[in-house]
Amino acid sequence: MTRRGQAHHEHDAHEGHGMRPLKTLISLDEALAVAMDSVRPVERTESVGILEALHRVVAEDVRAPIDVPLADRAAMDGYAALARDTFRAGKFKPVVLRRIETLYADGVPTKRVGRGTCTEVATGSTMPMGADAVVMVEDTETEGDRVKVHSPVHPGENVSVRGEDIERGSIVVRAGEVLTPAKVGAIAAIGMDRVPVYSRPRVAILTTGDEVVPPGARIRPGQVYDINAHTMASVVRENGGEPALLGRVADRLAALRAAIRKAVRADLVVFSGGSSVGEKDMVLDVLREMGDVLFHGIAVKPGKPTVLGRIDGRVVLGMPGYPTSCLSNCYMLLAPMLRRMARLPAASGRVVEAPLAKRLVSVVGRVEFHTVRLVDGVAVPAYKESGAITSIAHADGYIEIPANVDLIERGERVRVVLF
Amino acid sequence: MTRRGQAHHEHDAHEGHGMRPLKTLISLDEALAVAMDSVRPVERTESVGILEALHRVVAEDVRAPIDVPLADRAAMDGYAALARDTFRAGKFKPVVLRRIETLYADGVPTKRVGRGTCTEVATGSTMPMGADAVVMVEDTETEGDRVKVHSPVHPGENVSVRGEDIERGSIVVRAGEVLTPAKVGAIAAIGMDRVPVYSRPRVAILTTGDEVVPPGARIRPGQVYDINAHTMASVVRENGGEPALLGRVADRLAALRAAIRKAVRADLVVFSGGSSVGEKDMVLDVLREMGDVLFHGIAVKPGKPTVLGRIDGRVVLGMPGYPTSCLSNCYMLLAPMLRRMARLPAASGRVVEAPLAKRLVSVVGRVEFHTVRLVDGVAVPAYKESGAITSIAHADGYIEIPANVDLIERGERVRVVLF
Repeated sequence: MTRRGQAHHEHDAHEGHGMRPLKTLISLDEALAVAMDSVRPVERTESVGILEALHRVVAEDVRAPIDVPLADRAAMDGYAALARDTFRAGKFKPVVLRRIETLYADGVPTKRVGRGTCTEVATGSTMPMGADAVVMVEDTETEGDRVKVHSPVHPGENVSVRGEDIERGSIVVRAGEVLTPAKVGAIAAIGMDRVPVYSRPRVAILTTGDEVVPPGARIRPGQVYDINAHTMASVVRENGGEPALLGRVADRLAALRAAIRKAVRADLVVFSGGSSVGEKDMVLDVLREMGDVLFHGIAVKPGKPTVLGRIDGRVVLGMPGYPTSCLSNCYMLLAPMLRRMARLPAASGRVVEAPLAKRLVSVVGRVEFHTVRLVDGVAVPAYKESGAITSIAHADGYIEIPANVDLIERGERVRVVLF
Repeated sequence: MTRRGQAHHEHDAHEGHGMRPLKTLISLDEALAVAMDSVRPVERTESVGILEALHRVVAEDVRAPIDVPLADRAAMDGYAALARDTFRAGKFKPVVLRRIETLYADGVPTKRVGRGTCTEVATGSTMPMGADAVVMVEDTETEGDRVKVHSPVHPGENVSVRGEDIERGSIVVRAGEVLTPAKVGAIAAIGMDRVPVYSRPRVAILTTGDEVVPPGARIRPGQVYDINAHTMASVVRENGGEPALLGRVADRLAALRAAIRKAVRADLVVFSGGSSVGEKDMVLDVLREMGDVLFHGIAVKPGKPTVLGRIDGRVVLGMPGYPTSCLSNCYMLLAPMLRRMARLPAASGRVVEAPLAKRLVSVVGRVEFHTVRLVDGVAVPAYKESGAITSIAHADGYIEIPANVDLIERGERVRVVLF
């Protein structure tokens, strides 16, 4: 890599801005810090069935209403007895006990085990009163109700003590924990079939641009299908949120105002398009008029014409209209914001190292993201143009070129974050 | 680690087997190979809306019914013109063109651009007939309908050519690909609002054991809540399957036969409990009677008393009843089987390296899995007993001790696979 200290903001010919150039760009780090600070973890909670609870975030400490196991129980198939009755037992000198009862795993003992007696138990059987150990079946021989014990056991041997796994009143799963299969199992173990979890952040997704048509409809020259609403909805899902597609908003201020008033009922409002600087891009104007602008324009490629603001306490994120710019910013900004709102840990994208297939030139002063395909272990740049969805759909991941680097040579090893 | 060449199968005091000991154990590798070979990728397909398509597996090559873009279009805000009209333009010697039309992004041009004229375009506008380039607005000045061009453009400059992103008839997403947000976007780009995907494998989950009670119901001593059905269902979900909880089957052969006949309508049948070797464990008997046993007993701890068989061409997996044994085997066997059935790539568990907090002793000849918590970067064994769900629910991951290792010293670095 060639690093340069001096930053200069160069004109970006592929971000579709024109009449009102973005003058002051903030760095990607700064934009991310502002964006993360602008959102808060969602406080709403709901109760879900444990079969639907996987990967949800627990909203309050879950305490055990019972001991697990509920009572002392046999940890082995064998004979429940008094340990001291077996102390003198040996391989060739068995102690003989009298079997007074036989229990299966779900059996409830009815007889007290006293000196010289035992109860046959299966793994999981409740221990009979009096008995304090289980002799494994392998260490016994039976003749009718006479049980020969060939090996001594100590008190407590082969017995699971009441509450050994989970003690009544103890915390089984803590508030804020993400439910794994094992934690779902722990909730089942204490008999709960529902669990309180934080609600997923609701994200209203709006599309601006009179030329944008929803997939499934007919299209004519001059129109394009709405890619961004669907990539954004997918990213929202992937990061613990619930997308609500509110459709296309006409490129008129009144329509935009009305749409925003409706959308701010969600936890986060995301626009695609309309944050560039053409004559008809009005998200910025509406943000200025109805709320505050937190930043407008990021020193990143792709993804520069991005705006963040707040209306009525709700965060509004205006994404670039170009599909790759929009999706790149989804990964850089929207995903971390969502994970904070959803109380999920930061995403740990899988990363592989690979040599770069060809030299990449970057502009100092801005972070650049380049999509790559992995071909025989080599990172091949997949970028076509920022409008091209295929430059990201046909890529395996992306590399990030820091703001102070202007060149990565062919063959240099790069870190590829996989999609 | 201390490695031992000689393998011997020791009696495992914590796997709850008694009357009919497991004589011949197969290795975990062998069990996994047999299990993977026993299942086939699901062939059923279905059509899903693209908003529900994230992470689904595409069932047939998706070809573009249109070019994207649909027609040549402006890649910048500016003026569509004939490139050769601009060749002589300079910063202080502008070429003057006459604007004959103004288009917004969705506008359809009605006038042909000829020599000396231009059409004002926005990014995305369809190129007017005659024009072959776009002069960026930054390089122009206007006075009424007179446009001064200060910089030459070459033919094709700032124009996105029809089909440049996606050519009509080309494959946008291939059969077998897992849908990422970008691939969902590519499908939206060609106007499709549905996509053919492979159906998720259906997994029938059955619980054996008369002592097992579903969460939400009342419990008495001698009974336990059904943990395994819920951990298994969660693992099934996590690996692209669709669980169907068929409930508890009474510990009688007739009931088991009837349940299996119903369950084999699913793509895979999984039992918990009933594969141990106690008197009342009958899954093995039913498998022998109704189908084939592929293996019974794996040299692994926990998870030894596991059975795999086939009835009417359907694979039946019998899991141990102990929650940790069952869940451990879910990760080792069930998850890879499911991913093959669901056509998902092998799971890439996140792995961290950490020093071990205390010496662990293992039995040569079997693989051992030990759950650990990560405390200040150190791997602390979390194992309580194989019955204890908390030894896995409160763990962060697990380590694997190979069959030829009998000891890992305190402080040795181990690979922790995170849950």
